[in-house]
Amino acid sequence: MAELLSIILAAGEGTRMRSALPKVLHKVGGLPMVGHVMRTALKAGSTDICVVVGPNHEAVAAEAARHGAGIHIFSQLERLGTGHAVRQARDAFANASGNVVVLYADNPLVSSGTVQAITSRLDDGADIVVVGYRPADPTNLGRLLTQDGRLLAIREHRDASEEERRIGLANSGIIGFRAEALRAIIDRISNKNAKGEYYLTDAVELANGDGRRVEFIEADPAEVMGVDDRSRLAAAEAQFQTLRREDFLQSGVTLRDPQSVWFSWDTQIGRDVTIFPNVVFGPGVKIADNVEIRAFCDIEEAVIGEGASIGPFARIRGGAELGPEVHLGNFVEVKKSRIGAGSKAGHLSYLGDAEIGAGTNIGAGTITCNYDGVNKDKTIIGDNVFIGSHASLVAPVTIGDGAYTASGSVITEDVPEDALALGRARQENKPGYASRLRERALAKKAARGK
Amino acid sequence: MAELLSIILAAGEGTRMRSALPKVLHKVGGLPMVGHVMRTALKAGSTDICVVVGPNHEAVAAEAARHGAGIHIFSQLERLGTGHAVRQARDAFANASGNVVVLYADNPLVSSGTVQAITSRLDDGADIVVVGYRPADPTNLGRLLTQDGRLLAIREHRDASEEERRIGLANSGIIGFRAEALRAIIDRISNKNAKGEYYLTDAVELANGDGRRVEFIEADPAEVMGVDDRSRLAAAEAQFQTLRREDFLQSGVTLRDPQSVWFSWDTQIGRDVTIFPNVVFGPGVKIADNVEIRAFCDIEEAVIGEGASIGPFARIRGGAELGPEVHLGNFVEVKKSRIGAGSKAGHLSYLGDAEIGAGTNIGAGTITCNYDGVNKDKTIIGDNVFIGSHASLVAPVTIGDGAYTASGSVITEDVPEDALALGRARQENKPGYASRLRERALAKKAARGK
Amino acid sequence: MAELLSIILAAGEGTRMRSALPKVLHKVGGLPMVGHVMRTALKAGSTDICVVVGPNHEAVAAEAARHGAGIHIFSQLERLGTGHAVRQARDAFANASGNVVVLYADNPLVSSGTVQAITSRLDDGADIVVVGYRPADPTNLGRLLTQDGRLLAIREHRDASEEERRIGLANSGIIGFRAEALRAIIDRISNKNAKGEYYLTDAVELANGDGRRVEFIEADPAEVMGVDDRSRLAAAEAQFQTLRREDFLQSGVTLRDPQSVWFSWDTQIGRDVTIFPNVVFGPGVKIADNVEIRAFCDIEEAVIGEGASIGPFARIRGGAELGPEVHLGNFVEVKKSRIGAGSKAGHLSYLGDAEIGAGTNIGAGTITCNYDGVNKDKTIIGDNVFIGSHASLVAPVTIGDGAYTASGSVITEDVPEDALALGRARQENKPGYASRLRERALAKKAARGK
Repeated sequence: MAELLSIILAAGEGTRMRSALPKVLHKVGGLPMVGHVMRTALKAGSTDICVVVGPNHEAVAAEAARHGAGIHIFSQLERLGTGHAVRQARDAFANASGNVVVLYADNPLVSSGTVQAITSRLDDGADIVVVGYRPADPTNLGRLLTQDGRLLAIREHRDASEEERRIGLANSGIIGFRAEALRAIIDRISNKNAKGEYYLTDAVELANGDGRRVEFIEADPAEVMGVDDRSRLAAAEAQFQTLRREDFLQSGVTLRDPQSVWFSWDTQIGRDVTIFPNVVFGPGVKIADNVEIRAFCDIEEAVIGEGASIGPFARIRGGAELGPEVHLGNFVEVKKSRIGAGSKAGHLSYLGDAEIGAGTNIGAGTITCNYDGVNKDKTIIGDNVFIGSHASLVAPVTIGDGAYTASGSVITEDVPEDALALGRARQENKPGYASRLRERALAKKAARGK
Repeated sequence: MAELLSIILAAGEGTRMRSALPKVLHKVGGLPMVGHVMRTALKAGSTDICVVVGPNHEAVAAEAARHGAGIHIFSQLERLGTGHAVRQARDAFANASGNVVVLYADNPLVSSGTVQAITSRLDDGADIVVVGYRPADPTNLGRLLTQDGRLLAIREHRDASEEERRIGLANSGIIGFRAEALRAIIDRISNKNAKGEYYLTDAVELANGDGRRVEFIEADPAEVMGVDDRSRLAAAEAQFQTLRREDFLQSGVTLRDPQSVWFSWDTQIGRDVTIFPNVVFGPGVKIADNVEIRAFCDIEEAVIGEGASIGPFARIRGGAELGPEVHLGNFVEVKKSRIGAGSKAGHLSYLGDAEIGAGTNIGAGTITCNYDGVNKDKTIIGDNVFIGSHASLVAPVTIGDGAYTASGSVITEDVPEDALALGRARQENKPGYASRLRERALAKKAARGK
Repeated sequence: MAELLSIILAAGEGTRMRSALPKVLHKVGGLPMVGHVMRTALKAGSTDICVVVGPNHEAVAAEAARHGAGIHIFSQLERLGTGHAVRQARDAFANASGNVVVLYADNPLVSSGTVQAITSRLDDGADIVVVGYRPADPTNLGRLLTQDGRLLAIREHRDASEEERRIGLANSGIIGFRAEALRAIIDRISNKNAKGEYYLTDAVELANGDGRRVEFIEADPAEVMGVDDRSRLAAAEAQFQTLRREDFLQSGVTLRDPQSVWFSWDTQIGRDVTIFPNVVFGPGVKIADNVEIRAFCDIEEAVIGEGASIGPFARIRGGAELGPEVHLGNFVEVKKSRIGAGSKAGHLSYLGDAEIGAGTNIGAGTITCNYDGVNKDKTIIGDNVFIGSHASLVAPVTIGDGAYTASGSVITEDVPEDALALGRARQENKPGYASRLRERALAKKAARGK
């Protein structure tokens, strides 16, 4: 297989997004669109990737650069068409000996299989391979004029005859070249057209004129979907989710209502995991086998051990690590904490910057007071500890193995192993005072005149 | 443009709703259906609106009256058909010189554009204009028999020939009259039919008989959708939401999963706002630019400032005002409170009847104790305050600028500026007591015999 | 009507589920699939039910046995086809005089109406009745070859002629026999076929050969849907929910967004109940009239009284009983508790193992500390009690009628009627200390070098 250079065009303005954020940084499955296309290019075996960004799009360049080595950023200062954009990356293909594939950062769902289908045709002797697709309605799209497996031309809708307009196969814009062919053609693309732009699709006609071999392949319309406004962005997100949901269902995950579970690009889930309706996975989640995740959970940057049971109404984030058989219940937040095997926090708790051992019970309404306004401090809780309900654990603080804290305590000092810690006031009852309070409250209301 | 009188028929019983609530008070997008039609009539330029309500439907009259001046309520004591209903409003059109449009309170999605299209035809010389639509299946519906842009008749399904039944254009019931034409016809509508009712649609035949000009326009089927049971109500709600979602997407709001975000009729959202899945907006919400709203939020009667970040799992209500860059995190409720720029309440807090300055941090598990069983009192917190975690702030109470309250404190008295307030018991550790407690608990269990 | 014996085939391996759990124990609407079919068989009037389970599927047998008397479990040790499976239940039909219907535990949505349609035909003289259906795409399915209301044969796809492949009516596998006919035929089914299995469908050919009367009925494709992987399980769940949602809409329940409300098989809901988006009902829920359930609630094993208002963000479970007009607000969990008429718990509370009277107010942030690490103890609260915000109620504890507890109190001892109980430390202010704390925190940060 010849070496592969991918050129990702990421310079579009995206005015229809009505956004201050460059279009290709808008996210699908929690990853900027340009990141999806970077990953596809890498997965398809690209040895080098060029990303052509627009003016003042340093943030796009930075996102692209995050995805590995062999990444080259080029700037397109004027937006003069796709042919012009590819020319900006000339340094990258000037001496290339293999294949070049041109992708679009606003086509986030293109698959590595499609890229590999292109390169496979190029390796088999094609000079150019264009990716077509059959949209529900091809009106206004360029059509692929084909004959005997060859691509004769790409006909713009406005120039097409009645007969040509009946062709269902449209141009996706995705195109592969043998590097040599690209070099031979790229500078001959002209801007003598209505918009004064350089269209990369003109390469087809030029190559055919040179007697080169121009082929085409067909891709799933859902895969080559372009995003140009937020409605299309939502459609791409929906398609991304549909694919992930079906993957997980087939791999042995139960989704009671697949439509109401949202995955990120990197979510990992084991076998016999059951997910109830309404669960959102942000980036960085890895879930072991036999976990149950009940409704209304929001989970990101978290590792969840085998047999854990989570939710409903749990929020886990910030690099949380939950051991096997951990239980987190409702209205519980865990942030940047480790929780050992079999420990439980069932109700209305905030566990932040904590290290909790195994077999420990965190009572309802427990709060780790981990912030002093400037620093975040740690709460360390041993194995088999019983934290009584409604505890305030004022970090930094350490609670030894087997210790017990009384309900309603404020724990400001370390608790030794097996000790009982109390930090609460003694109760006092004042007989008959309740009616006095009520009278006073009513008097106050009357005085307020409402 | 001639003056416009709208007559809204709101007297239907709605028995198929199986509800004690009058049908037209059931809500779409958080607004009773009759309210939607009132708003449409107003937006289309109605100078007066008549609402014809059923017997004992004071609540319908009250809802209608809420929508402004120039609103006249008429009662239809017997339900004798649409023609009869319109007659009840005779006082309103007896001397009218302009146009009259008849709308239905159980057609909540009819647009002002459609009403304006009717009046435009009337202004151009039509005597009557009927709104038709093309439903997926017109079976059992009255069909519009048209010729050369004129409406010849409305043919009920049971009376239609085979050929007429192939007509796809059905009668929506919505109809406009020049006031003079309405007066000339309304009393000639008879009840000599199977049901003994007065059908307003008979006006078409009468007008044609008089040589008047009867026209028709076509509306989107989704717009003229009638609601007669809760399944149709849900369908109307779905259509309402579809329209709002698309509006917001086009105006520069990111909805990661549009299907799982529910808007109210009056929701306002700025540009570059990102909304995660599963967010519910009740009435009265206004959101500035660059706000992020994470999953599982429920927001009503709230103003949210630029750059704020909300949720997941936040609940905001009761006239809350959040300044710019405010952060509210998970399991946080804000009710009838103002929060200043950059202040944060990240976890498990209830802020009710509070005024909070800028740059203040509200620790996890903070509760404003604002209710004494009778009165609601205020909690006033200054700028740059640090409220330690798990605080109880017993209102009325004021905490000065720059003050600091220790974690786990019950604050019952005012705290001066820059002071530290503590209100918690000192901790005591009892070595070895944890095992004694465990033994005692086990003994208790044994004694209980379970 | 003749006696009915149902044979439920539940022995399938379900390898495509990729699960350690037997396929037929995967749930639809919160009930294992085999349970749905058991219930259908019972509802259709089965006097006895045989369940044929696979090897080591004790859990399937146990689930089946839960559904009543007259249930017989048979084991199919080798999986040699449906004919072989039915033979395992021979003891049950050896002396039966009525009808026998064969159902499938992985067809969870089959209705009792369909079973009754089968038995009605058998009672009218048919020997065998096969259930057909018209799938969107019948490719690869066995087709019913019919003539004049009789079923001539079931033709497997691979054996079908071009013409036979155009038949849209496919075999569901569901089949009824007069017991006598089943006995006459079952042992003559052979395994001389490609897979070496005994196919129950061969009974059709054998019966026709004997001159018996073989009929067919048609069922809704959605009803006979088989589940063989988790994608189909999700589809069955979706269909189940669609049916329940429509039932509730028609009975007078408002579902603002039906798609986002999930019912269990046994959910009961009264009239004029309004349910907001995103509500999950687990098993065992019964809701009276005029209840409002706001968004994001998770409710199971709960009885909710007339006029109650619940949520948003409420979690109710474990046998909770809420009286009329009870209000539960956001981030409130109620477990195994009774709450009397008109009592309220509006915010961030955990009420477990509690008995609460009428007219009582539970302040924000109240926690019942019901667990000592071993035992669960009760919290008993009388009528018209005011529990101040942020209370810790340490069970076992009793709070008398009309009592009042101060905000932020830890209540460890019983409170007499009408008494005021306080259990909190006195507040102390330290002027100017806040800046010292801030300086100290900043110094600590500097020392940490970050």
